[in-house]
Amino acid sequence: MKLASLKHGRDGRLVVVSRDLAWYADASHIAPTLQAALDDWNRLLPDLQNLATDLEHETIPRERFHEHEAAAPLPRAYQWADGSAYVNHVALVRQARGAELPDSFWHDPLMYQGGSDGFLGPRDDIPLKDESWGCDLEAELVVVTGDVPMGASREAALAAVRLVGLTNDVSLRNLIPGELAKGFGFFQSKPASAFSPVFVTPDELGDWWSDGKLDRKLMVDLNGEPFGRALASEDMTFDFGTLVAHAAKTRNLGAGTIVGSGTVSNRDADGGPGKPIAEGGVGYSCIAEVRMIETIQNGKPSTGFLKAGDTVRIWVEDDQHHPIFGTIEQTVAAA
Amino acid sequence: MKLASLKHGRDGRLVVVSRDLAWYADASHIAPTLQAALDDWNRLLPDLQNLATDLEHETIPRERFHEHEAAAPLPRAYQWADGSAYVNHVALVRQARGAELPDSFWHDPLMYQGGSDGFLGPRDDIPLKDESWGCDLEAELVVVTGDVPMGASREAALAAVRLVGLTNDVSLRNLIPGELAKGFGFFQSKPASAFSPVFVTPDELGDWWSDGKLDRKLMVDLNGEPFGRALASEDMTFDFGTLVAHAAKTRNLGAGTIVGSGTVSNRDADGGPGKPIAEGGVGYSCIAEVRMIETIQNGKPSTGFLKAGDTVRIWVEDDQHHPIFGTIEQTVAAA
Repeated sequence: MKLASLKHGRDGRLVVVSRDLAWYADASHIAPTLQAALDDWNRLLPDLQNLATDLEHETIPRERFHEHEAAAPLPRAYQWADGSAYVNHVALVRQARGAELPDSFWHDPLMYQGGSDGFLGPRDDIPLKDESWGCDLEAELVVVTGDVPMGASREAALAAVRLVGLTNDVSLRNLIPGELAKGFGFFQSKPASAFSPVFVTPDELGDWWSDGKLDRKLMVDLNGEPFGRALASEDMTFDFGTLVAHAAKTRNLGAGTIVGSGTVSNRDADGGPGKPIAEGGVGYSCIAEVRMIETIQNGKPSTGFLKAGDTVRIWVEDDQHHPIFGTIEQTVAAA
Repeated sequence: MKLASLKHGRDGRLVVVSRDLAWYADASHIAPTLQAALDDWNRLLPDLQNLATDLEHETIPRERFHEHEAAAPLPRAYQWADGSAYVNHVALVRQARGAELPDSFWHDPLMYQGGSDGFLGPRDDIPLKDESWGCDLEAELVVVTGDVPMGASREAALAAVRLVGLTNDVSLRNLIPGELAKGFGFFQSKPASAFSPVFVTPDELGDWWSDGKLDRKLMVDLNGEPFGRALASEDMTFDFGTLVAHAAKTRNLGAGTIVGSGTVSNRDADGGPGKPIAEGGVGYSCIAEVRMIETIQNGKPSTGFLKAGDTVRIWVEDDQHHPIFGTIEQTVAAA
């Protein structure tokens, strides 16, 4: 089942979207918003599934689904907790600045608490007040959970995953060193993230969803050129069950909690850092990573951060090259 | 005007509470929840104010207000951003571990993104799975904002303050060093916070609310003994206007954003660190601070962190010694 929120008020209007993303059926008679559906998931799920079946069978009124009319599936959420599961990515950041990677990073997930009071829709501009802040994309997977009790096991945490989707976790790279030096984590360096037009239930992904990982390539284009084609199931040190359990170690997680994978990143086939797509590699899911590799190789970065007019596309394809979650497609705009 | 949320479902039921906290009137015909009221504040405020006036005049049906029936005014919120405005507190933490305080800390606020998907009510137990985590209280002031646009000035940010209240920002002190060393800020070390039974509009505070500071003592008792009596307007390096503007530098803040002051802390009259109340000082708003002072004075701390059965009370009084926001009164319970 695929769910989306059409732009409407602060929380959108819940719709069920057809598998091919061409059509939607209004679901607001079942739950007005996606949050409301997540709040009462077990009771409402059968009705939502029936609606999705009827939509596929074309037995109910349907409307064309336009991705630019979609808000983020949760236009605002009660929690956005972003992990850093691709330790390869973290290792590269550290290598670029000559810092060692603590061994603990391979068995204790990094995770930060993100702002969740207002997200960007999949086709919304990325508002940027100051290009010197170093605006970057970060292409990631996310899951949305139901209620997770404090101290949940990895298996219980994984069973609480309700939906899977994509995010562009926009980052202001040049504000990060100052904030991290203060010791309290990210705040100003993490403006509003954008999410894919639809989130899907794990069963919709079939065998591609396995052990809390998605076995598909995360496609990223930058200004119309292929930029990233990393395999999301590869080099993912911590699966989503482990990430959700980490988040729940000392407190309950409320229904509608969004947990992110962190920037997807693959090592090169030869074990070294990833190569650009033009050089036969799988590329990158953020600009910072290519800049790190440029720094490692040439002593300084040559790729610039995002500026007004730059475009970012993020999606995942099925075997027929159709986007599964729709496409995040954003343009940077001076704010 | 004083607002509370009686325990009911995930978001409580909005009520207006009398100035003396003895009575309430149901407000759910105006807005079902406090979040709903904040989402449409300018339109709904006159109706809520009329209800509060009628309640004071005893011209409408009213019920006894029991603080143990109250949830947190926002039982869950879209944002909890906690500052560290009492730099005195930060200076003491640093002094205790022999670290210098960067000069920038006096003009650039510290702030972390807190978890907001589920808060404790004012009389709820503090669930603690493991006493070795070093459970601490942190008594703080909070404000709740309306919508704040990205880049708002201090003045605009201050004008967006809708409500003022108190929090017990529960912290797991022994998990903090490990998390901060990882560089991504707090996560597991900050379990669910509790909030005061009522939040109040700034006008309710009269002259006590001035320039984004509250000119009253923050009262803290630990296990029935006076523990903290710090003046909230003193040594507050960053007022709430400055804190909210800091939060809004790179992104909009959604209505219902909660911004905290950080642990309230006063220097001693002689300029040194604060003394315990038993020694004529104003005491402390968290256990970590008395432990720091013990460490500075004796080389090691002697006050222990919270254990099952310990009780915490946090409140602020008017001139007649009546609590303004009600009382946070919690017992630590093994979870």
